[in-house]
Amino acid sequence: MNELFDLLIHNCDVLLLGDDQIEIATHYDIAIQGQNIIAVEPTNCERSEQAAKVIQADGLLAIPGLINTHAHVPMVLFRGLAEDVPISAWFNDYIWPLESNLTPEDVYWGALLGLAEMIEVGVTYVADHYFYMGEVASAVEMAGMRANLAWAVFGHEGEEKLDQTCAFVASWQGKADGRITTWLAPHAPYTTSPEFLRMSARKAQNLGVGIHTHVSETAEQVELSLQEHGITPVQMLEDSGVFEVPTILAHCLYATEQDIELMSHYPTGIGHAPKTYLKLGMGITPISRFREAGIPIGLATDGAVSSNTLDILEQLRLMVLTQKDLAHDSTSMPVREALEIAFHGGAQVVRMADRLGDIREGKLADIVLIRQDGVHTFPRYDPAANLVYSSRSSDVHTVICDGKILLSDGKLLTIDKELVKREVSARLERLSQRVPGKRIATYPA
Amino acid sequence: MNELFDLLIHNCDVLLLGDDQIEIATHYDIAIQGQNIIAVEPTNCERSEQAAKVIQADGLLAIPGLINTHAHVPMVLFRGLAEDVPISAWFNDYIWPLESNLTPEDVYWGALLGLAEMIEVGVTYVADHYFYMGEVASAVEMAGMRANLAWAVFGHEGEEKLDQTCAFVASWQGKADGRITTWLAPHAPYTTSPEFLRMSARKAQNLGVGIHTHVSETAEQVELSLQEHGITPVQMLEDSGVFEVPTILAHCLYATEQDIELMSHYPTGIGHAPKTYLKLGMGITPISRFREAGIPIGLATDGAVSSNTLDILEQLRLMVLTQKDLAHDSTSMPVREALEIAFHGGAQVVRMADRLGDIREGKLADIVLIRQDGVHTFPRYDPAANLVYSSRSSDVHTVICDGKILLSDGKLLTIDKELVKREVSARLERLSQRVPGKRIATYPA
Repeated sequence: MNELFDLLIHNCDVLLLGDDQIEIATHYDIAIQGQNIIAVEPTNCERSEQAAKVIQADGLLAIPGLINTHAHVPMVLFRGLAEDVPISAWFNDYIWPLESNLTPEDVYWGALLGLAEMIEVGVTYVADHYFYMGEVASAVEMAGMRANLAWAVFGHEGEEKLDQTCAFVASWQGKADGRITTWLAPHAPYTTSPEFLRMSARKAQNLGVGIHTHVSETAEQVELSLQEHGITPVQMLEDSGVFEVPTILAHCLYATEQDIELMSHYPTGIGHAPKTYLKLGMGITPISRFREAGIPIGLATDGAVSSNTLDILEQLRLMVLTQKDLAHDSTSMPVREALEIAFHGGAQVVRMADRLGDIREGKLADIVLIRQDGVHTFPRYDPAANLVYSSRSSDVHTVICDGKILLSDGKLLTIDKELVKREVSARLERLSQRVPGKRIATYPA
Repeated sequence: MNELFDLLIHNCDVLLLGDDQIEIATHYDIAIQGQNIIAVEPTNCERSEQAAKVIQADGLLAIPGLINTHAHVPMVLFRGLAEDVPISAWFNDYIWPLESNLTPEDVYWGALLGLAEMIEVGVTYVADHYFYMGEVASAVEMAGMRANLAWAVFGHEGEEKLDQTCAFVASWQGKADGRITTWLAPHAPYTTSPEFLRMSARKAQNLGVGIHTHVSETAEQVELSLQEHGITPVQMLEDSGVFEVPTILAHCLYATEQDIELMSHYPTGIGHAPKTYLKLGMGITPISRFREAGIPIGLATDGAVSSNTLDILEQLRLMVLTQKDLAHDSTSMPVREALEIAFHGGAQVVRMADRLGDIREGKLADIVLIRQDGVHTFPRYDPAANLVYSSRSSDVHTVICDGKILLSDGKLLTIDKELVKREVSARLERLSQRVPGKRIATYPA
């Protein structure tokens, strides 16, 4: 018997995202050859004989792999160490002192811990922004996920450090069968000088890559920038040439109208992490401002010391709830729009809209199968609303990335969780020390 | 060998809620005799020989059973049928037409579906407010949960209907080994007259029971009450004598300062369901207003047509996130206070603070064991923060109510979920019809 393709997801329901509507089609087959989806068609029982491997998916809902557009994955190492503190203390008295303890090997194990958590909740792509990114890349390669990786640099670390991150960009670009892309990551306008941003932009252009940075997270940051530089942080990014390359702008809660107009002329995109914003009391920005200006916006988890989880379904639910609340209007951000942001918006932000964000012939085979048989998602009058409002992260049954199965029936196949927990455990006492005055950077406040 | 008690939870961690602090004690035993906790002490291996049954609980976190202070449990039957609609249409075009389809038997199966969902997420007590409450009582008795049940009545249904609900109160009071208590439930000031409220209060006094009602959910309701009656909805409850008995006041987002002062002189309590408020764009009230006035506030799910789940851990997380957001202050509502509201606040609202809300000698044995071994709750620097911010509802491992095990290793012992889903499925087509003009009440707008 001839096997015509590698993997068949047989008889699932499938979330189909049109431009103006969503459809949950029932009794569908998804055929995968190598990295790609080659057919999405009504169930055909003969087809299952043509696949090297068949996943019987009766009653499971297939959705595109979830995209996390901004994270600091290895920060799971510090989960729970900075609760209920003000934002400047969060940086200066907790995070940056704690991060001064990190070794490359810590980052490797922290990355695996965070990647395990993400795969369990259906995340197949992460745009990660952290330190020792070669270690994160190794972890991503092993875990089987897809990632855009960017090594964070502070202005005070200088050009030499920036050049090290350029070397990382060059050495990991397109690695792991093409699953890894690499960008630059000057940390933020509030931790770099305009000159440093300009230098970063020039190097990114030379490398042909984008820039992943933080911007305008609080009103105070915008105020401080206006005082010191006479322009907003967004304007500083434009002024220094950063917008000449594609950017992921994390958070961007306090963009002015002028900022948004500016951003709309460049290949910018926003990583939106509402759990962090709520928890740190930062406010919530109306997403419609960016969408009306044509600026892509995707979901993000930020790091687990602010958001406590790396769960994109949780951020999806929080996004739609907080946007309805902001608008004081239960009809705003309907289920369709929320899913459109999660999948298409996320793919646009990471500049992969041609290959990700849909289950469709020709797209990459990043697919998540979700259980729908729980009492909490019953009845199934509206399976899309169930996905947004009722599903539990533990409903994630199967995760496929780049055509490979990473999670099957809730079991991780690529990461040994117990080994990772043992390795992390052995480091906790050292990692949790905060030495007075010792920190990797200083938050201006 | 003499068995000295019925059930031992052996070698767990336990959440101990003091007045000003919380402690997670490790390596503890909890001994249960009949309905009661008789000892909470450091692990003693000899003790396990004295128990009829032992739960090996290494690494599990014991918390008091979660309390849902306001729900419409059988509304799970309509989950997903009223998405993204305005609040007046939500009542008049969806919920109340749909509810006109209900038969007592529908309510029975809907109650079992909702009780199954709640037990799975660690809820052991629910204050339920719905129709055909005898059916709900039967379901609660079978499921093994604890409940306060109140049969909702609209003013237009008249005294005869109210008397039927009084008969329900009398016939189910103290039943199911004392697990069921019964109250009256005039629906809300906006669906009853002052005279009807007065009559309800009088009958509640005669029966020696409390009243569970909705109040001041939107600014428009308060405005309408001022126009029609010259007083706020809260003042109308006081004026009509409702506050002479204990009350659960659902929602109460738009209480005035004067209302709060008034409420503080009576045995009132508030059921707080932030997921509903966010989803319907109703606003969020600062909880501190009520707490400063000494008015108990507990967590609630409301019905699953607004909140989509019956998950108190989800409402806990949303409460703390929305309160920090409201205050624009990451230090407000710390983990300790959030847990204090969930457990002590809930127990106070349902007037059971002497018996529920703590794992302590002499309290009722309503206990939930939570897994802490997931990658998402690792490391365990701060297990209480993990519980509030990182845990998944699926981490609920064991649920004990009134000394009986209802859920073991995630498996429901008292409800046949597949049977319930089959029974509900057979009713869905009829239940989901909306006949123009046919509804059980009308929302004034």
